[in-house]
Amino acid sequence: MGAMRILLCLEYEGTAYAGWQRQKNALSVQQVLEEGLRRLLGRDTPVCGAGRTDAGVHALGQAAHFDTRASIPPDRYAHALNALLPPDIRVTRSLEVPEAFHARFSAHRKEYRYYLYCAEQPSALFASRVWHVRGPLDLGAMADAAARFVGRHDFAAFQAAGAAVRDTVRTVESAAVRSGAGTIEIAVAGEGFLYNMVRILAGTLERVGAGALAPECVTRALASGNRLDLGPTAPARGLYLWNITYEGLETRRIAPFFG
Amino acid sequence: MGAMRILLCLEYEGTAYAGWQRQKNALSVQQVLEEGLRRLLGRDTPVCGAGRTDAGVHALGQAAHFDTRASIPPDRYAHALNALLPPDIRVTRSLEVPEAFHARFSAHRKEYRYYLYCAEQPSALFASRVWHVRGPLDLGAMADAAARFVGRHDFAAFQAAGAAVRDTVRTVESAAVRSGAGTIEIAVAGEGFLYNMVRILAGTLERVGAGALAPECVTRALASGNRLDLGPTAPARGLYLWNITYEGLETRRIAPFFG
Repeated sequence: MGAMRILLCLEYEGTAYAGWQRQKNALSVQQVLEEGLRRLLGRDTPVCGAGRTDAGVHALGQAAHFDTRASIPPDRYAHALNALLPPDIRVTRSLEVPEAFHARFSAHRKEYRYYLYCAEQPSALFASRVWHVRGPLDLGAMADAAARFVGRHDFAAFQAAGAAVRDTVRTVESAAVRSGAGTIEIAVAGEGFLYNMVRILAGTLERVGAGALAPECVTRALASGNRLDLGPTAPARGLYLWNITYEGLETRRIAPFFG
Repeated sequence: MGAMRILLCLEYEGTAYAGWQRQKNALSVQQVLEEGLRRLLGRDTPVCGAGRTDAGVHALGQAAHFDTRASIPPDRYAHALNALLPPDIRVTRSLEVPEAFHARFSAHRKEYRYYLYCAEQPSALFASRVWHVRGPLDLGAMADAAARFVGRHDFAAFQAAGAAVRDTVRTVESAAVRSGAGTIEIAVAGEGFLYNMVRILAGTLERVGAGALAPECVTRALASGNRLDLGPTAPARGLYLWNITYEGLETRRIAPFFG
């Protein structure tokens, strides 16, 4: 039997992990997934993820591919791997993809969501899933700032200080601020994002909502490239890799309460 | 300064606890709360809860009162205790109540919600928060069965086998089945419930939804008092003590995603 390329769609609670990417001295989602695959297939089987997520960041629509000569039907990997993985990592779907498919390079669009929880006291049930802020926040000002973020821009100001990426031009398709169900949701979609770009946007929108920054700071930062024109990097725990769009496929999971 | 009675409204993630009630060889929410109060007030301060919750059951609207001669302003207990409690237990509100107020006996109405998650693969983010079932479930049949549960009945069939409660007559005000946001929600309200009553209802509704039991089984069980006419007891993890209604006060918390 020839080699087959399998795509896995993944949901995970990022709290217990040092992020997606395998690393030396900390447990990553990739490592746990590859250990599950080794147990299932009896051999080392590296996976290639659609993109990294930081320590503490969650995913409802992560994706990763691997190649195998095993005779397991493609749609059975989800169930078989879930029996071997810890409950905070789930394969939501598995399917065969063409040899030319690549979890990272075939992605047309990624969507992230960031959740703020605005209340006097923090949440017990969602302590590791939202950013608790006292507020109140001005949603109109936040939406104004978010809209300035949309389009093809040099996002040099929106990356972690010291990042070494040369080409910092990206296209953001949409950035929306909605409130409901106890939270303020920031939904951002585009073809790709710089390291910490969504968390810097979320941290900036919070400051704009609180009145500490004006919405114009986003426009100014896009022109200046100066990280200091923006707010702080929001905590990882409020961020979710929500969906990846491939040709004919959305990775997004219908999850409890997130719908 | 005279003694003051303080009411605490509480949200907790029940997974790490052996339930609300203090017990000898396992950690309870009550024990953790009383340890926080001892650290805050410098003396043993027993709390009286509105009712027990089982191991693994969550709460968005638990309540408990205690008496103190401390001079802390009543509304400051929430913040002060949250600095001393683990993140999976939060005091959402604190207020002074009259001496005659009692967290358990002054309650007019309690509401519980139970969440099923109907999907091929379980949820990573909500593994300890919902009951995963493969389904599909017939919502109409479930609603039919739930409606039969409403009213003043002898609920002897709806209690854990071996329970020693003599008077098993209770009044259920409402029992509704709704679907949305990836879940099926069972919302039940009444003046009081027997031990395991809501979980037996949830386990029965799941069996009715799957077609293994007919909605009429609820009517039959109310007449027969026979536990065997009903479905299994649903797992604790899908159950939430949602709200308690007191004179002029609802304990319910606006929580992220639960709204």
